[in-house]
Amino acid sequence: MMDVLSSLQNPRVKQIVKWRDRRDRDRDQKVLIEGYRALVRALEGAYPIEELYICPELYQGVNEPALVERCVAQGARLFQVTSAAFAKMSYRDRPEGLLGIGTQRHTGLEALLPLKSPAFFLVAEQIEKPGNLGTMLRSSDAAGVDALILCDARTDLYNPNVVRASTGNLFTQVIAEATTADAIAWLKGHGVAIVASTPHTDLLYTAADFTGPVALVMGAEEFGLSPQWLEAADCRVRLPMMGAADSLNVATATALLLYEVLRQRMDAGIVVDTGAVPDARDC
Amino acid sequence: MMDVLSSLQNPRVKQIVKWRDRRDRDRDQKVLIEGYRALVRALEGAYPIEELYICPELYQGVNEPALVERCVAQGARLFQVTSAAFAKMSYRDRPEGLLGIGTQRHTGLEALLPLKSPAFFLVAEQIEKPGNLGTMLRSSDAAGVDALILCDARTDLYNPNVVRASTGNLFTQVIAEATTADAIAWLKGHGVAIVASTPHTDLLYTAADFTGPVALVMGAEEFGLSPQWLEAADCRVRLPMMGAADSLNVATATALLLYEVLRQRMDAGIVVDTGAVPDARDC
Repeated sequence: MMDVLSSLQNPRVKQIVKWRDRRDRDRDQKVLIEGYRALVRALEGAYPIEELYICPELYQGVNEPALVERCVAQGARLFQVTSAAFAKMSYRDRPEGLLGIGTQRHTGLEALLPLKSPAFFLVAEQIEKPGNLGTMLRSSDAAGVDALILCDARTDLYNPNVVRASTGNLFTQVIAEATTADAIAWLKGHGVAIVASTPHTDLLYTAADFTGPVALVMGAEEFGLSPQWLEAADCRVRLPMMGAADSLNVATATALLLYEVLRQRMDAGIVVDTGAVPDARDC
Repeated sequence: MMDVLSSLQNPRVKQIVKWRDRRDRDRDQKVLIEGYRALVRALEGAYPIEELYICPELYQGVNEPALVERCVAQGARLFQVTSAAFAKMSYRDRPEGLLGIGTQRHTGLEALLPLKSPAFFLVAEQIEKPGNLGTMLRSSDAAGVDALILCDARTDLYNPNVVRASTGNLFTQVIAEATTADAIAWLKGHGVAIVASTPHTDLLYTAADFTGPVALVMGAEEFGLSPQWLEAADCRVRLPMMGAADSLNVATATALLLYEVLRQRMDAGIVVDTGAVPDARDC
């Protein structure tokens, strides 16, 4: 029932290696979904896994066969590969023996409807490093963001390191790709307050009111937000900086702002925390 | 006055390439300080830069010559290298033409004295990825932590990627290296509350009181905190998780906890924010 690939020259093996390169990946509109966690998230997000390459001798635990079954049940074609072939296909230092192939999805601002009440969006402008974009996706999932709006991205959303750093949350979240001009017009048209993160403001992030519909806007690693976003913002907030440095990593700053929104909404009873653990010991 | 190195076979060039490897770096107790920001922080932290390798054609801005002068004034021996040689020595994708060499510093728990009031420590246990440890150092500087306590580290503090991700804040902060047993005994002996971050607790991080002397303890990427820290903790706190995933990146989680300490202390008037920008526009 299952194809077995052993040659490093196998056309499928070579094709997957090529898909690590953006040009090939974009031309064929593919995404590599590597590792247990990313595949679980893809299944949870009903993201079709079209092909699954496995190398059982590299499995890290005991749950892999059940996951493979779920992938096959939703339609994946299964291939077993040798560890040498898998090492060639993998983009990880320590491959886990699981690599899926899917087709890229691209959605625009229409994906943001219907609006939740109060809306909670994260806008990422011109982010350059895939690790940062992936970490931002991981944090926005955790903070309960409705959607990510990706503006004028300088890394592609389906870079393998976005998948990895997002721990697969790329596949469970609503992501709208748009130009800055379109995103600003859409948010203003739908009554969502634009909150820009910048050091050039007096207002601390903890002093702003995030209980209404809000879109947090984060700018590029080196240069911060563009003038368009800074001008369009209903509110500019900054993070306190108590040390020698004048900035935080952009993914770190994003998480701080997202969790401040969450803190205020939990305090106001708008969001209810459901994460308490039964066997917990606090203090 | 200045040595010029052009050969890729020059013994100094080859030595610096070797110092990217932990074994060579540790044997010689060296640290590579690459890039403008990291060198500025090293000077600010009075961290001696013994040698400085420059490649002016790679400079990104106009401030480099002044920085080079400061390095030389504090005692650095200066070498100019060709761009080919610099590319070989650099660990960056886009080298900035500035690479310093220093000697590693290692300090123990004695470096934590005298205690500030109220004390504010970050404990990092068994962190594995240099990028995470570096980002934790960057965030702890920004949040105004007194010192980092590094327990049973699985990456070395002087890994080039720790330097890079910390944006040089490695050189401005007090860092104590200790075993978990010694660190627990020291904190308890000095009346500092141990706050462990773990999903296995009912207590949200925003509901704990961080206005007294506190040490936040963060565990390894994959397995979290060891039983020793969880048992020793005066308090266990968790972050709310509202999405599909069950955890955040460890450096992200660290920043959220550090900034909650800062928020509570600013609210209580214990810490005063001094970062307001003169030409700011808030809302």
